[in-house]
Amino acid sequence: MYGGIEWLVDAQGCAPAKLRDRGAVLEVLDRIVEAMDLRVVSTAVHVFPDAGGVTAMYLLSESHLTIHTFPEAGSATLNAYCCRPRAPAPWRELLGEVLGAREVTASEHARGRR
Amino acid sequence: MYGGIEWLVDAQGCAPAKLRDRGAVLEVLDRIVEAMDLRVVSTAVHVFPDAGGVTAMYLLSESHLTIHTFPEAGSATLNAYCCRPRAPAPWRELLGEVLGAREVTASEHARGRR
Repeated sequence: MYGGIEWLVDAQGCAPAKLRDRGAVLEVLDRIVEAMDLRVVSTAVHVFPDAGGVTAMYLLSESHLTIHTFPEAGSATLNAYCCRPRAPAPWRELLGEVLGAREVTASEHARGRR
Repeated sequence: MYGGIEWLVDAQGCAPAKLRDRGAVLEVLDRIVEAMDLRVVSTAVHVFPDAGGVTAMYLLSESHLTIHTFPEAGSATLNAYCCRPRAPAPWRELLGEVLGAREVTASEHARGRR
């Protein structure tokens, strides 16, 4: 089966200091890699200046992980795209623990099918 | 308004040789950058071995672009996430011209809203 599954995960009510913390944002992706047994090929990270957030992208053997944080809104938006069968990571617990998220919504999208 | 819009765009019936062609795959993203007036911060590209496809990710000031190609299935899956207001690129025409896609579906997702 080609194309795989992508989860779009949005977190609200996060701790703004965590959303500006490069280490915390990468911890989110690293914990997903571990939970879903993924292989990282390369990474790109950018910390936006002043009160801006962090963007991190992991290029995977199994597709990609991305996260963007918006400290001014207390929110983060995460994508986890896996072209091989995997159970989803525990989004709510993970984003609550690492970023202090109080509300997490996740939707699942089949990709690449007619 | 925080969070922005993400388009999930899936292309079928593409030319397999184009899906293995790093230059063609990057042309898709470069044309979206131009069409939507985006700013590229950094890029990550991986060409999978043998008959594998190409993954490319652009980290943008306005969020991200990603594409994965599946030559064995004639398909490509594209994400375009823009946290600032933009009109979408002409997905169908662009993927038809560059990858030979015969069928393109696109869905639009508001991100980061309660």
